[in-house]
Amino acid sequence: MMPRPLNSRGMFEPRRIKHCRVCGSPVAYRVPADDNRERAICTSCGEIHYENPINVVGTVPVWEDQVLLCKRNIEPRRGLWTLPAGFLELGESTAEGALRETDEEAGARITLGELFTVLNVVRAGQLHLFYLARLHDTRFAPGPETMEAQLFREHEIPWDEIAFRTVRDTLRHFFEDRRKGSFSVHAGDVA
Amino acid sequence: MMPRPLNSRGMFEPRRIKHCRVCGSPVAYRVPADDNRERAICTSCGEIHYENPINVVGTVPVWEDQVLLCKRNIEPRRGLWTLPAGFLELGESTAEGALRETDEEAGARITLGELFTVLNVVRAGQLHLFYLARLHDTRFAPGPETMEAQLFREHEIPWDEIAFRTVRDTLRHFFEDRRKGSFSVHAGDVA
Repeated sequence: MMPRPLNSRGMFEPRRIKHCRVCGSPVAYRVPADDNRERAICTSCGEIHYENPINVVGTVPVWEDQVLLCKRNIEPRRGLWTLPAGFLELGESTAEGALRETDEEAGARITLGELFTVLNVVRAGQLHLFYLARLHDTRFAPGPETMEAQLFREHEIPWDEIAFRTVRDTLRHFFEDRRKGSFSVHAGDVA
Repeated sequence: MMPRPLNSRGMFEPRRIKHCRVCGSPVAYRVPADDNRERAICTSCGEIHYENPINVVGTVPVWEDQVLLCKRNIEPRRGLWTLPAGFLELGESTAEGALRETDEEAGARITLGELFTVLNVVRAGQLHLFYLARLHDTRFAPGPETMEAQLFREHEIPWDEIAFRTVRDTLRHFFEDRRKGSFSVHAGDVA
């Protein structure tokens, strides 16, 4: 996952817009005429700058009874384990983004399955979406954002060294659904 | 739904950032050192400006065998019918945003149900998420973005006057699932 304007506590940093993206003049925060929230409005050309939550997309790559995790080589949470995931880019669907991130972070060849979790991280201004995925083989080629990529059985998962709450929740749902023998979409929020 | 930087064909407008949001200096589009895509980078302070798809959240408000639609009073697609929906804001979850938009656009009191559709609109740089919802009553108070709010049975739906493809797909899935007697999450893309 690439850097975003979050502060040291992982909260979205409000009011980071100081200048207009169109003309470079200073902005002022006020409520536009047809709106009910403060926005950064250009004091010169009037351009309104909206800020919205962004999407993180990733996969649960499965090989037999094992799941692929990546040890993060970048901050935040360097050295902790994550499912392959990153920010959704313009020009791609959530499924395409999840596939791309799995390639970039783990160098893993997968067939994408169904959407599996949709988890809000409100304080970070993010929505995390994970897809089920089937690994084609066990040869991985981690990118620069990953120290190592490794397969884990359920009892081997390093629960105390998982980088993000959404990854922990997604893994828990995965093992629960696997025990039930049926997978469904899980939507919710994390603190 | 509020205005976004889309051009007249509803496509996301790239390269709209001309100046740095932090210092106001001109930006140049190039690939940052640890990245693989062009970003708007400040030629003075080095700030990197990411642009990502944004989320639209809404509901399928149900009363007995009827669904609530809103006739749009704003562009784009003024005069056409939509499910209540709008852009997700910072500080709220997708469920909270869907509830808020249903209040703002239709003045409808609802109990939110399960997440129902997750639909990519790649060319617009958007992800649309709709929740099932149960109406408490049939007294509506449409906001300024809505001409009128009206309940429709399946055979009454004005299919040729639906504002957005994601709304049409969501309504089709709703009536199909209702016939089957079981609702599940539908994820996919629209053209």
